Amino acid sequence: MKVYKKRDVPVHLIRRYLEPGPVVLVTSQHKEEINVMTMAWYTVMEFSPSLVGCMISSANHSYDLIRKSKECVINIPEAHLAKTVVDIGNCTGRSTDKFSELDLTPHKSSKVKAPYISECYGHIECKLIQTKLLHQYDFFIFEAVKCRMASAPKYPQTLHYTGEGIFMISGKTLNLKSRFKPQNL
Amino acid sequence: MKVYKKRDVPVHLIRRYLEPGPVVLVTSQHKEEINVMTMAWYTVMEFSPSLVGCMISSANHSYDLIRKSKECVINIPEAHLAKTVVDIGNCTGRSTDKFSELDLTPHKSSKVKAPYISECYGHIECKLIQTKLLHQYDFFIFEAVKCRMASAPKYPQTLHYTGEGIFMISGKTLNLKSRFKPQNL
Repeated sequence: MKVYKKRDVPVHLIRRYLEPGPVVLVTSQHKEEINVMTMAWYTVMEFSPSLVGCMISSANHSYDLIRKSKECVINIPEAHLAKTVVDIGNCTGRSTDKFSELDLTPHKSSKVKAPYISECYGHIECKLIQTKLLHQYDFFIFEAVKCRMASAPKYPQTLHYTGEGIFMISGKTLNLKSRFKPQNL
Repeated sequence: MKVYKKRDVPVHLIRRYLEPGPVVLVTSQHKEEINVMTMAWYTVMEFSPSLVGCMISSANHSYDLIRKSKECVINIPEAHLAKTVVDIGNCTGRSTDKFSELDLTPHKSSKVKAPYISECYGHIECKLIQTKLLHQYDFFIFEAVKCRMASAPKYPQTLHYTGEGIFMISGKTLNLKSRFKPQNL
């Protein structure tokens, strides 16, 4: 298992990790039941409060755990976990304990009951704050209340799903800071 | 100018291009006024109808053009347009004709009045269908009504914004198709 040294990141900075669009793993807990699902249909919605909008189909077992507990954790896996990410999306928490089956370690979170995944680059603890589009679109809006990320590598090697079983892996970075107006940085 | 040979793509397949999370350029037109803005806070929301949810701040000039015309086009730029992408986000359509200033060619769309950008890898014509979260979150939901993408390269070299003036450029692809259940592909 890859071990990361993690540090707190202010929640208004989660765009740094989510805006590039990686596949994430969402962990949830209701009463004693925990689960994990893959998610790629989400977007940052605001810096402060730090908001994330997420499409979580009601067909997912996690949907009920999140709706009832009003919490979840968004975990960011790196590319070395690609096969595990696929396997998470190809079994159901209704009949499988995905954590033990897939060798993932659930770790106690600090502000929500749902655990985070130790093997991931980092995680964002979230509370459900808006369900206006839940019935019609399965769209949850969460507020990030705690964020911890690995201090190295600076830019995680993330997975980006293109459909049909094919992922794009994050590539090089390009610094265009000097072209921005200071107020837009 | 890079010239792409483009082809129609069924609208339920837009996830192929949007789900990896690239920075996109949103074009809009109301009456005779056209504009373009950068956007990275959006998510696919449904396959069929083909839905995209987008955060477009009311501080943007495009917000009004889109709200009034109820249409827009989502254009996907490749990495060679990185400087132009930054420049689009660092001036305002209120005082600048961004198309002529930045050497972008607006081209007539087929199902909406807003033009698409010829220099981009592809584009998705969209109609506004839901504004329930517009007042509180500046969140628009669009239905994709037409999609055209370049036939090559198969995977565009897209830009993914990490904040602070730094972009991630899409890297290699990883095919894990054989690990998926057929119904999940």
